[in-house]
Amino acid sequence: MSQEEQVFSYRPIGVIRSPFRDPVGMPIQPGGASGIPGTVEVFEEYRAGLADLEGFSRIILIYPFHRSAGWSLAVTPFLDDRKRGVFATRAPRRPNAIGLSIVRLVEVRGGVLAIEDVDILDGTPLLDIKPYVPAFDSFPDERSGWLSGCDGRVASARSDGRFQGGHKGK
Amino acid sequence: MSQEEQVFSYRPIGVIRSPFRDPVGMPIQPGGASGIPGTVEVFEEYRAGLADLEGFSRIILIYPFHRSAGWSLAVTPFLDDRKRGVFATRAPRRPNAIGLSIVRLVEVRGGVLAIEDVDILDGTPLLDIKPYVPAFDSFPDERSGWLSGCDGRVASARSDGRFQGGHKGK
Repeated sequence: MSQEEQVFSYRPIGVIRSPFRDPVGMPIQPGGASGIPGTVEVFEEYRAGLADLEGFSRIILIYPFHRSAGWSLAVTPFLDDRKRGVFATRAPRRPNAIGLSIVRLVEVRGGVLAIEDVDILDGTPLLDIKPYVPAFDSFPDERSGWLSGCDGRVASARSDGRFQGGHKGK
Repeated sequence: MSQEEQVFSYRPIGVIRSPFRDPVGMPIQPGGASGIPGTVEVFEEYRAGLADLEGFSRIILIYPFHRSAGWSLAVTPFLDDRKRGVFATRAPRRPNAIGLSIVRLVEVRGGVLAIEDVDILDGTPLLDIKPYVPAFDSFPDERSGWLSGCDGRVASARSDGRFQGGHKGK
C-alpha cells in the first residue's frame, strides 16, 4: 500500500463546550477569545490520563473541524482579502481538517477541564490534549509572513460563513 | 451515533524525512534537535496549498506517531522517572497517537520544504502543516508543571525503546 493510500483514524476522547453554537461570529484565534470560558469534558475511560495536567497553565487541544465541509488549497483567510495557500493559514477547510488551539487551563475538576481563551465551536469532538511547554512551544521572534501586522486585527476579527459547507475542490 | 462512536479519518498529504531511522536515540523535542535538518515532501496534488508559506520562519507539523503501538493513560516520560498522566506528557503512546512538532522552515523548493530542529522519525506520514504565528502560539511565561526545571535536560535527553510495541492498555 502506498503512503497516499494509508488512512489514520481517531475516535473522540471527549467533547469541547463553548459559548459558540454557530461558526459565524466566532473569534478566529484564542488571541481574539481572551477570557472566553469553556470546558473540556473527557470521557470516563480516559480520565486517568489527566493526572499531573493541573500543573500546566496552558494546554494544546487537537480536534477535528467537524462542521467544516470540503477543502481548498487556496483560501481567503478572515484576516486578509486575498487568497493564500491553505497551509499558510489556520483556516478550517484543509485537506485534513484538524484544528489546534492553545487555551488557558483554569482548573481540573475530575474529568472536566475549565478553560479560557476558547475559539472552538460548542460540541467539537476532542482528539488529544497536550501540555503547552514554553521550552518546546514558545518562539516569540519568528516571522509571521502575510500575517505580519495583523496582530491588532486578531482581537476583533470574527468568522463569517465562508468555511461552512461548500464543495470539495482545489 | 454517540460521540464516542464517531471516527475521524485522515490521509497523508506528504512524508517527513529525517536522519532518524529508529525511534531509539532520537531527540525527544525540537529543543533537543536544534539544527538537525530534514525535509517535508508534500504530495503533488497538495502542493498549491504551500503558497505564501515561505514568509513564516516556523511551521507546525501534525503527524501520526505511526511506529507507536498501543496506548496507556499513565506513562513514564523520557524526562522523568515516575509515571505521569499521558495528557500531561508529549509521549507517543496516547489514545489518539497524534504528534505535533514546531520546526524551523528554512526554504520552500517546489513541493519540498527544507526544515530544521527535526525530532521526527524518517518516513513519518504528514497530516497537516500550519504556520507558526507568535501572536497565536507563543506564550513564554506559562507554567510547565512537572516539566519545570527539565529545560536543561531536553537538549541532551534521547528516546529509548519504551514507546515501541507494547499492548493497548490503561
